[in-house]
Amino acid sequence: MPYVQVNITEGATVEQKAQLVEGITDLLVKVLDKNPASTQVVIKESGTENWGIAGKTVKQLRAEGSTKISSK
Amino acid sequence: MPYVQVNITEGATVEQKAQLVEGITDLLVKVLDKNPASTQVVIKESGTENWGIAGKTVKQLRAEGSTKISSK
Amino acid sequence: MPYVQVNITEGATVEQKAQLVEGITDLLVKVLDKNPASTQVVIKESGTENWGIAGKTVKQLRAEGSTKISSK
Amino acid sequence: MPYVQVNITEGATVEQKAQLVEGITDLLVKVLDKNPASTQVVIKESGTENWGIAGKTVKQLRAEGSTKISSK
Amino acid sequence: MPYVQVNITEGATVEQKAQLVEGITDLLVKVLDKNPASTQVVIKESGTENWGIAGKTVKQLRAEGSTKISSK
Amino acid sequence: MPYVQVNITEGATVEQKAQLVEGITDLLVKVLDKNPASTQVVIKESGTENWGIAGKTVKQLRAEGSTKISSK
Repeated sequence: MPYVQVNITEGATVEQKAQLVEGITDLLVKVLDKNPASTQVVIKESGTENWGIAGKTVKQLRAEGSTKISSK
Repeated sequence: MPYVQVNITEGATVEQKAQLVEGITDLLVKVLDKNPASTQVVIKESGTENWGIAGKTVKQLRAEGSTKISSK
Repeated sequence: MPYVQVNITEGATVEQKAQLVEGITDLLVKVLDKNPASTQVVIKESGTENWGIAGKTVKQLRAEGSTKISSK
Repeated sequence: MPYVQVNITEGATVEQKAQLVEGITDLLVKVLDKNPASTQVVIKESGTENWGIAGKTVKQLRAEGSTKISSK
Repeated sequence: MPYVQVNITEGATVEQKAQLVEGITDLLVKVLDKNPASTQVVIKESGTENWGIAGKTVKQLRAEGSTKISSK
Repeated sequence: MPYVQVNITEGATVEQKAQLVEGITDLLVKVLDKNPASTQVVIKESGTENWGIAGKTVKQLRAEGSTKISSK
């Protein structure tokens, strides 16, 4: 029955998303013996102006070419 | 004061969303005697490539015509 | 496949929780034709010192006997 | 390491979002002595038909010109 | 910068939790080339009376010895 | 109507929590002209074995006396 929510900035491909869903489900089955049929993995994407780290949005950090703070 | 978040895949109509908001609010008032004025119900929709169940995205399950795993 | 999260302050009984789970699931089946077997409703409770409304915690509002701001 | 999620209806500007990220990060550093480099503030916007309060969506409340229930 | 939230019922061991954190972080690094130093994985546990599936709480399903609906 | 969720590890005092609620509410009123009466700020605390960063739980990082990865 687990529900996993993956919050990331926009940009993942359909293929990468499918790999995340498969990999996280496999892990929950392997580590916690969960039933895959009721294991849900949901990906929530945010625009870079909606994600902040170290007091700035990722949009700002990337515009500044910031390398000190990881905006990945 | 309750805050309810309803996570679903895209596709509900404006009318269906209004019914969910009304029905869930009524239930919280009836069962928990909550104040409707401060009861919030928020619907978060995800694309089918962002919702995974049983290790595959709903997009994949629907493309395969899967009937074993419910992707509804 | 819906995942519904109900955020409330502590104090609901086991019976009330079961009524919320049943009522919200029924609503999702009726309004959106969702499959009940994969519909999940999760209740997250918070202590009154962890829930804020109108700039004060519910703990503070209740200690003050506030009636203007609903802390229900 | 805090992760703060700000749920609002659509309509904030890029500048306002940057102010929220900066202000909330500063507050967590000041109040809890958190490390800003690992403090994340993420803004999740919802359409007005997806946000319900007092049993109606904000879309409905605004169409009715409701002033009793705050839909701000 | 990803933030992953794993919602499960109570019962995982400290060791299993560490395996989930390690495995999900590795996956995000491998699939999305994320920076592990800013990847956060948070586990949220709920009591069985707070988790509902198929219209009943897991507490109810387990008391009934339900085998049709997976309460794992 | 905003709903803000602050996810942190355990350890904040009742007074610090009240400061977070007050400060975040003030900021939303100032920046977005939100109505404080319907602004909710909820703090969700996690045990250190439930919070992972850089592939390890905070519990592990603190036991190792890690200084490279911020576990604050």
